[in-house]
Formats: sequence, structure tokens, C-alpha cells
Amino acid sequence: MKSLKPYQTYINNELIKRIDSPKYQTPKGLYEPCAYILKNGGKRVRASLVLMATKLFSQNYSQAISTALAFETFHNFTLIHDDIMDDASLRRGQQTVHVKWNTNTAILSGDAVMILAYTFFEETQEYMPKLFNLLNTTALEVCEGQQYDIDLEQADLTDSIVSERMYIRMIELKTSVLIAACLKAGAIIGGASDKDADLLYEFGRNLGIAFQLQDDLLDTYGEVQTLGKKIGGDIYENKKTFLVIKALEKLPSKESQNLIALYKSKDSSQSKYKDVIKLFDMAAVKEITEACVAEYFSRAEMCLSKVSVSHDDKVEMYNFLDDLKQRNF
Amino acid sequence: MKSLKPYQTYINNELIKRIDSPKYQTPKGLYEPCAYILKNGGKRVRASLVLMATKLFSQNYSQAISTALAFETFHNFTLIHDDIMDDASLRRGQQTVHVKWNTNTAILSGDAVMILAYTFFEETQEYMPKLFNLLNTTALEVCEGQQYDIDLEQADLTDSIVSERMYIRMIELKTSVLIAACLKAGAIIGGASDKDADLLYEFGRNLGIAFQLQDDLLDTYGEVQTLGKKIGGDIYENKKTFLVIKALEKLPSKESQNLIALYKSKDSSQSKYKDVIKLFDMAAVKEITEACVAEYFSRAEMCLSKVSVSHDDKVEMYNFLDDLKQRNF
Repeated sequence: MKSLKPYQTYINNELIKRIDSPKYQTPKGLYEPCAYILKNGGKRVRASLVLMATKLFSQNYSQAISTALAFETFHNFTLIHDDIMDDASLRRGQQTVHVKWNTNTAILSGDAVMILAYTFFEETQEYMPKLFNLLNTTALEVCEGQQYDIDLEQADLTDSIVSERMYIRMIELKTSVLIAACLKAGAIIGGASDKDADLLYEFGRNLGIAFQLQDDLLDTYGEVQTLGKKIGGDIYENKKTFLVIKALEKLPSKESQNLIALYKSKDSSQSKYKDVIKLFDMAAVKEITEACVAEYFSRAEMCLSKVSVSHDDKVEMYNFLDDLKQRNF
Repeated sequence: MKSLKPYQTYINNELIKRIDSPKYQTPKGLYEPCAYILKNGGKRVRASLVLMATKLFSQNYSQAISTALAFETFHNFTLIHDDIMDDASLRRGQQTVHVKWNTNTAILSGDAVMILAYTFFEETQEYMPKLFNLLNTTALEVCEGQQYDIDLEQADLTDSIVSERMYIRMIELKTSVLIAACLKAGAIIGGASDKDADLLYEFGRNLGIAFQLQDDLLDTYGEVQTLGKKIGGDIYENKKTFLVIKALEKLPSKESQNLIALYKSKDSSQSKYKDVIKLFDMAAVKEITEACVAEYFSRAEMCLSKVSVSHDDKVEMYNFLDDLKQRNF
């Protein structure tokens, strides 16, 4: 994402400076996996958003770097533990921690990464109480989101919790609140008014939801060349996405039953994919989801437009929004 | 432990008040295991020590309750994750979280308990920066201790890391620094001088080491009636305790080889236990370890004696020390 480029090198350098500290070298069995995940790139979206939000209100965004790193590091902690729970083998094109090492190592070094996040947060001085509450509240919400994700995955498609409302709430907690909190934290450090800080939170919250719904769309309707992975993974894995929830809501009873039956089978043939798509098309879920993504992006944009700084100063943030809107990967 | 009695009810009530908050009820899959571990008793040693240390310097120890709960809650987080790593099925006479629920639930609710610890910590106002650094530093050290424990368990008895120095360092990090930090935190809140706060830290550090070495002794030389569990568990499980490390150091080469051979076998017969005890007796490890325990207790007592409050005001702390010295369970 072009809009994040100006920040990524700075963030990486500051992060590496901290994790390469002599304090965090031994025992190797603990700290090597920490450094592995923290140095293993990623787009640094969360840290960048902290800095970008500070820059909206203050020339000196370097004052926000420790907070930016705390949020980015917290995000990396969630990745290590989520990958265990989801039994994922790859992350950013590399082996996940529990695969490269083992589950116990991934549990313990994940814990250490979370504590490192709080340690980086120590440098946050003036705004500490406000930011600390924001970080803690958000951190618990992210855990709640992961639990709702597990609950949804374990439910039958016909269970009442498998609903649009619950799904949106799940992605909101699992992804959006952290994005939102990063923006709000940056705004607080920049000296924004409470109103502007809250507007940026809402900007991030809506953006995050749009982003996750886009993910669902791309997994089923994306292009293999740009997406860089197989299309239809969610369908083959019977994943409860926004698309399937919407399809069940819209389809007539008989087709709805067919879809439920398809999602019970462990079939991973091309014909299953085609049958599901046929039902999705009948329910127009692509168009419905696209409209929903557009709606959340538009809400985000509305919030951003109300932030009381000049349009010129917001150009970078608008560019980020456009990057997200146009993404096809 | 009699000396903790005055604090336990107060601590339990304050903890329950917080975890029963409507904020921490849904999703149930996340918060039920959190409440289960936090309400499942324990002696509340860590929280009590925070309060007792505050009381040394200030009449009003209730000002320390949020810090006390933060440290106690952090300790409970380590129990959930350690029990997964050690594959332990019982904790305080009840099923461990990963057994009662499952590993993923234990990972995620453990994470939430850690975040709850930091959340309770928000109430810590005036001394926040100092205490936050103490909590973070200690939390990372506890992870380091757990890693050294894993490293020791995975090593051969003949590996160079299996040494008295490494073993003491491991128990120091895994157990003692948290005890020490609780005492120091309480002292800071009570308004102690830096010197007194550090003396209480050292008191706790030495006490914690003595306590862990006592554990090793009791497991092998305790009485089944008072200990409430089978004697010799560490020997049957080939656990690398202080006793076996000392025995290897003291025994002549041939007997040392015999001991190594015994610790390679998965034999759990009475005769293995007797053979090991014979070698332990030959090396006088019981007496050596008892002397070592006495030495750490005496160092602890020395630190406590130097704390600049009247002996009368320290009576409670001395009683706690005596409780530990005399324990046979």
C-alpha cells in the first residue's frame, strides 16, 4: 500500500532497535520466535495509522512512535496465538511460529510479545492513562472477537448466532477496533479534541469492517494472479463468511437447504465450488456484499470528512482510504 | 498460611467484584474460564504480600488493592498457560482450564486474564510509571523463567546447562521475582524509600528461592499425610530438581553414572525410588538442600531486618516468614 510507504522504514528501524536490545537475547528459545514474528515484515498498517493520525494534528509524529510500536507489537502477539488456534501453517509467506518451533514455544513467546507491547508502551508518557485504558479495552475486545470467531465456526449454519449482526460484530471486535484504536491513540498524542479523536475511531471502525468484508469477497470472487492464493478457499473449507450468511438469508427454502448440505460436505472438488457460486449468484451475494463494503467505506469517509483539520492535511488519510477501496489482493 | 488470613477475604471480595462486572460476561466461552481460574481460590500469596508491604509504611493499605489484584491476576494467567505447556490436569484440586475446556480456550482465556491484570492495573494512579515498569520487567522475567524450565527439562542430565547456577536462576525467574516485585510494589505504594523497597524486593527474592528448594525437598522427603500427594513424584518423572543436580555434583563417577541411568528409565516402581534415595543419601543431598534452604531464608530475614520500620510493625512479615519456614505441605 503506497500510502503507508513513508512510515514503514521508520517503523521497522525503531522496532528493530528495540527488539535487538541486549535485554531480549536470552533465553534464545523465548526471544528468537519473538524477533522472528516482529521482524517478519507485514505492512505495518497499525503502527502507520498511529503516526498518520498524530500527523493530522501535530508536526512531530515521532512522539507517537512508542505507542505505534506497542499497537503493532500487540497485533503480532495476536497473530502468533491465532495461528495456533486456527492451525495455520503460513503467515506472510513464512512458517508460523508453532510450526517452525512448536505449540508450547508459540504460546510462551506469544505471551512475551504481548508483554513487549506493554513494555514499549512505557515510553508513552503524558497521555499514559488515557492511552492505557484504550489499549487494554481494545486488547480485551480483540480476544472477544477471536472467541466469537470460534463460536461462529463451531456453530451450525442454522444456529441463530450465525447471523449478519453477529458476523459484523465478530469482525468489528477481531479486526476493526484495533485499527480504530490506533487512529484514536495517534489523534490523542497529536493533541486532537475528544470529538476528533472519536471521529477517527469511527473512521477506523468502519474502515476495518469494510476491509474484512472485502476479504470475504476477494477470497471467492478475486483473481488468482492478484490475490496470490487459490480462489474459493473459504468455500472449500466451509468457512462461515458474510457471503454464505447473506445467501442463506436471501435464498428460497429449497436452495437454502442445498447450500447447507454443500457446507456440510468435506468435498473439495471444483464442482462444489461451482454449485456454491451458482447459489451465491442466485442470491446476488456479490452485489449485496459490494454494496455493503461501499456503505462502510462511505461511513468511514463521512467520519474523516468531519475531522476538523484542512482537507489538504487529510490527503494522506484519503489516499490510504483509496488504497483500501481499490485493493484486489 | 495463618499469616495471610487477614487479607484473603478482602482480596477475594475485591477480585470477585471486578470479574463479576457486566463488562466481563460475554462471550461466555472467553470469560467463564477466566472467572473459573480467578475464583478458584489459591492462597492469594502475591496479593497479600502487596498489601502487607504497603501496611509496613502506611495505615491505608486499601490504596494498594488494585496493584495487588493486578499481580495476583497476572500470576493466574501464568498458571493457565503453564498448565497447557506442562500438560497438567489438576490445579488447586480442580481440573485445569485446558482439560475442562480445551487448549484453544486455555490459550485465549489465558491471554484475556493477562489483559485483565493490566486492566486492574489502570486503577494504580500516582505510582503508575514506576509500578508499570516493575510489572512489565517482572512479567518478561517470568516468561524467561518458564523458558529456562523448558530448556532444563529438555536437556540431558550431563548437559552443561544442568547446573546449580542455572537451576537457581530458573526458579528465581519463574517464581521469586514475582514475589519480590509484589513486595516492592507494596512498599512503593506505601511510600517507602528506594532503599527499603529494594530490601523488600531482596527479601522476596531470597524467600522465593528458599520456597522452591523446599518444594523439591518436600516432594522427595515429605510426609504423604501432610503433603497431600504421593511422595517421590519428581523422581518417578525424572524431573531435574535441585536434589539430583546436587547429587550428580557430589557423587563419585560410578554412582553418578548409576543415577544418570536411573533418570533415563521410565520405571516407576518403588525400587527405582529406593535406588535413587540411596544415591541421594550417599551424596547427603537432603542435608545439603536443607542447609541451602536455611541459607536463603536467613538472607531473606537479614533483608527484612534492615527495613527501616520498627520490629513491631514487621511482626506480620516475620510471621509469614515463619509460616514458610515451618511448612510441611
